[in-house]
Amino acid sequence: MTGKLQQTDRTTISRHSERASYDRDTAYEILDEGMVAHVGFDVGSGVTVVPMTYARLDDAIVLHGAIASRWLAAFKEGRPVSVCVTLLDGLVLAQSAFSHSMNYRSVVVFGDARLVTDKACKDRAFKAFLDHLVPARWDDSRQPDDKESEATIVLSVPIREASVKVRSGPPQDAAKDQGLGYWTGVIPLELTAGEPIPDPAMKGNLAVPTYALNYKR
Amino acid sequence: MTGKLQQTDRTTISRHSERASYDRDTAYEILDEGMVAHVGFDVGSGVTVVPMTYARLDDAIVLHGAIASRWLAAFKEGRPVSVCVTLLDGLVLAQSAFSHSMNYRSVVVFGDARLVTDKACKDRAFKAFLDHLVPARWDDSRQPDDKESEATIVLSVPIREASVKVRSGPPQDAAKDQGLGYWTGVIPLELTAGEPIPDPAMKGNLAVPTYALNYKR
Repeated sequence: MTGKLQQTDRTTISRHSERASYDRDTAYEILDEGMVAHVGFDVGSGVTVVPMTYARLDDAIVLHGAIASRWLAAFKEGRPVSVCVTLLDGLVLAQSAFSHSMNYRSVVVFGDARLVTDKACKDRAFKAFLDHLVPARWDDSRQPDDKESEATIVLSVPIREASVKVRSGPPQDAAKDQGLGYWTGVIPLELTAGEPIPDPAMKGNLAVPTYALNYKR
Repeated sequence: MTGKLQQTDRTTISRHSERASYDRDTAYEILDEGMVAHVGFDVGSGVTVVPMTYARLDDAIVLHGAIASRWLAAFKEGRPVSVCVTLLDGLVLAQSAFSHSMNYRSVVVFGDARLVTDKACKDRAFKAFLDHLVPARWDDSRQPDDKESEATIVLSVPIREASVKVRSGPPQDAAKDQGLGYWTGVIPLELTAGEPIPDPAMKGNLAVPTYALNYKR
């Protein structure tokens, strides 16, 4: 899909509107880089936020969980959710405590999460979950069988009513503060991968695959 | 405060209950290490999740935002929120696609977010926000004046009804999959700080402070 995200009352950013965007490509870049989505819903016991793995599949966010999960069972019919993915890029140190900030990129999506029941669609989603986290791993692992597929709930949320918020760059101190003499700048932050840790239960002396050795987001 | 977190119906973890805990100290460690909280609320236009900076102040999570923020204005009276902080520790590569997982630590808190109006309490919160992100920076920056304090809304959520979920360690493949011959193990992930980037607007040739140079979470 091309074109803008849908700007509605609740996706209109009232504070720091200069950081807001409704650009679909920017939203997709952020969603494709992130690894954890925070999903908010209310299935009868108040607003609840949980962390979930996810993937972007075309113009939707797909989520998954075990059929044994109590709250997921409530999604048999479509239900409104809010899905937020945030990437933290840096700490912004300003002259005044008040002007300290973070560099970040975030996407918030509002929409109805609907159960994916079609077998082919579900299979595409399973591949997307793994491709999203570790590209190349899908073909280097055992793919889901029918029992595993049936034990898994897949939800799809259209990326339509959504907004992007991005802060980048140096601090923005008020002119009156600029001569105060404190060091100001940005401490960049990045999610980095360490050396892969082989599974003690693994049989044989297998080499670490390149995609794990050189893992980079 | 000592003792357990409050286990209620909605903080009872139904899936992978072996990962669940109600230990207050573990919750505090996670909250003290995290930098972004995802806060869910419904102030009349459906469930909304937004990323926020936060701090733990004694037995509460404090949040803040600009008075100009539309949704924060709805918090003049206490309102239920769900606050989730998630730390990502690794990608878990198993024999089967189905058994792939993440190592993570997360806390979910349910409670009423209440406006902090007392001046002394608000000042403590301001210090906590900065101490939480960059210890030592509070004394090395200009502290908030009355105008800045008045322009900022501070909310406090008691850490009472809450749960912790932690996954760590190697993959857990089913016995029947263990001979499939794929490499399995964990790719550790960590949020790391890069070299500080001085603010181009900074006057003078100031040395980067130690707390920024050796920044570590």
